[in-house]
Amino acid sequence: MARASSKSNPMPVDSLEARRLIRAGAHTGHTAAMAPAFVQGNLCILPSDYAADFADFCQRNPKPCPLIGMSAAGDPRLPSLGEDLDIRTDLPRYRVFRDGEVVDEPTDIMAYWREDLVSFVLGCSFSFERPLMENGIRLRHLERGENVAMYKTNIDTVAAGPFSGKMVVSMRPLHPSEAIRAIQITSRFPNVHGAPIHMGLPAQIGIDDLEDPFAGDAPQMTGDEIPVFWACGVTPQVAVEQARPTLCITHKPGSMIITDLKNKDLAAL
Amino acid sequence: MARASSKSNPMPVDSLEARRLIRAGAHTGHTAAMAPAFVQGNLCILPSDYAADFADFCQRNPKPCPLIGMSAAGDPRLPSLGEDLDIRTDLPRYRVFRDGEVVDEPTDIMAYWREDLVSFVLGCSFSFERPLMENGIRLRHLERGENVAMYKTNIDTVAAGPFSGKMVVSMRPLHPSEAIRAIQITSRFPNVHGAPIHMGLPAQIGIDDLEDPFAGDAPQMTGDEIPVFWACGVTPQVAVEQARPTLCITHKPGSMIITDLKNKDLAAL
Repeated sequence: MARASSKSNPMPVDSLEARRLIRAGAHTGHTAAMAPAFVQGNLCILPSDYAADFADFCQRNPKPCPLIGMSAAGDPRLPSLGEDLDIRTDLPRYRVFRDGEVVDEPTDIMAYWREDLVSFVLGCSFSFERPLMENGIRLRHLERGENVAMYKTNIDTVAAGPFSGKMVVSMRPLHPSEAIRAIQITSRFPNVHGAPIHMGLPAQIGIDDLEDPFAGDAPQMTGDEIPVFWACGVTPQVAVEQARPTLCITHKPGSMIITDLKNKDLAAL
Repeated sequence: MARASSKSNPMPVDSLEARRLIRAGAHTGHTAAMAPAFVQGNLCILPSDYAADFADFCQRNPKPCPLIGMSAAGDPRLPSLGEDLDIRTDLPRYRVFRDGEVVDEPTDIMAYWREDLVSFVLGCSFSFERPLMENGIRLRHLERGENVAMYKTNIDTVAAGPFSGKMVVSMRPLHPSEAIRAIQITSRFPNVHGAPIHMGLPAQIGIDDLEDPFAGDAPQMTGDEIPVFWACGVTPQVAVEQARPTLCITHKPGSMIITDLKNKDLAAL
């Protein structure tokens, strides 16, 4: 395994080195360009009172909430995602919510750690965007250095305890033949949102104006593209915000947990 | 293997029995409802002078021309498609072309057989329509007893000798989520046209009016559907008509060759 030096290459290509850099406080920004062959995940930490319901919510809504790791209560380790991984220090930046409101954005959560906290790691679309690009499909938001456009749909998630709400989707504008290929490719990755959930007719899922996203940058669609929608990892975040748990800690958007899983190992075939 | 009696069930479910019935002259109509688990094919018989070019044309255009069987010159058998199969008698009705013009529609071609004739059998969309329906995708043309809508596109086939022309596509109107599922399902069948070649934006492939097909029935699209286009087995037929070979014998549309291959065995995974 290549171990890039942080001196010769500021962006480590190896997951272990990336986590060490982040743990040491030497990187507090986005993780998009770090260890690109490795799976990055969304983080959601909740008190154990909420854990069973949230696990159930993920199980009932696997396309927006693909659970790839879950810790024991009070245990900051997730060895299935990385031998050395410490969830309290290994993300560049966190968001701490109390009763649904952001109260802090620290670079570690040692001060917030409690014996009743359970960590959930959910797959993210970084894992399928790489194979899309390797297949020659151009992703405009990445080429422009923008965030993918996200929309709140009229599709209800399946509720579990206090967790409920509408499904959030991300949208990538694609030429029709690219869209067909993208469906084939992302179908191979059921644990990182999988195949699109919709395409072509945004009004059917409650999206009136593609150029006015709920989050991310306006896509600036052209007439030779169709909009292709994937279930988005912001869905559980919206569900958690609405549930207003007493405490919740997530990654700051873009500052993900880097695991030792390889993206290609998530391919179902 | 179930051998349905033609007395108790007028449409045989077994390929061998279907061919025997047809060979005996007891069935001269369409084959759509016959032996539905088995692969049906398009037939094209050409003098050996044309055979190498036509084989090349199929190889260069695998999506519209998925070759599943080819005979030796003068040999009416295709044992890989059916032990007993005699290409001269086992189709309900044929079309005989001389210099590109239809001159006969006989129920057998014993009178036309020559020692230099080569038979080509190409996969057809019947093989993937059945798995689509088994997955709950409704196909309107079948529900209405109509022919699927076909269009001549602006997409050039790759020419080989005298064979060339535009690609013909078949179109099925589908709801977006069904279209995504249909792409997954038909991707499993690369030998019977495979994944769609286009969707959503017909003008991009030279189709101005979906309700005015080149062949088949008008689809009567609704606003909650998108048009999904598959490469069509009529493409080689158009190429052959333009090449105007001295002699060419095809199936009459809808009256296919029934093989012993199972549709499910054509699935790539």
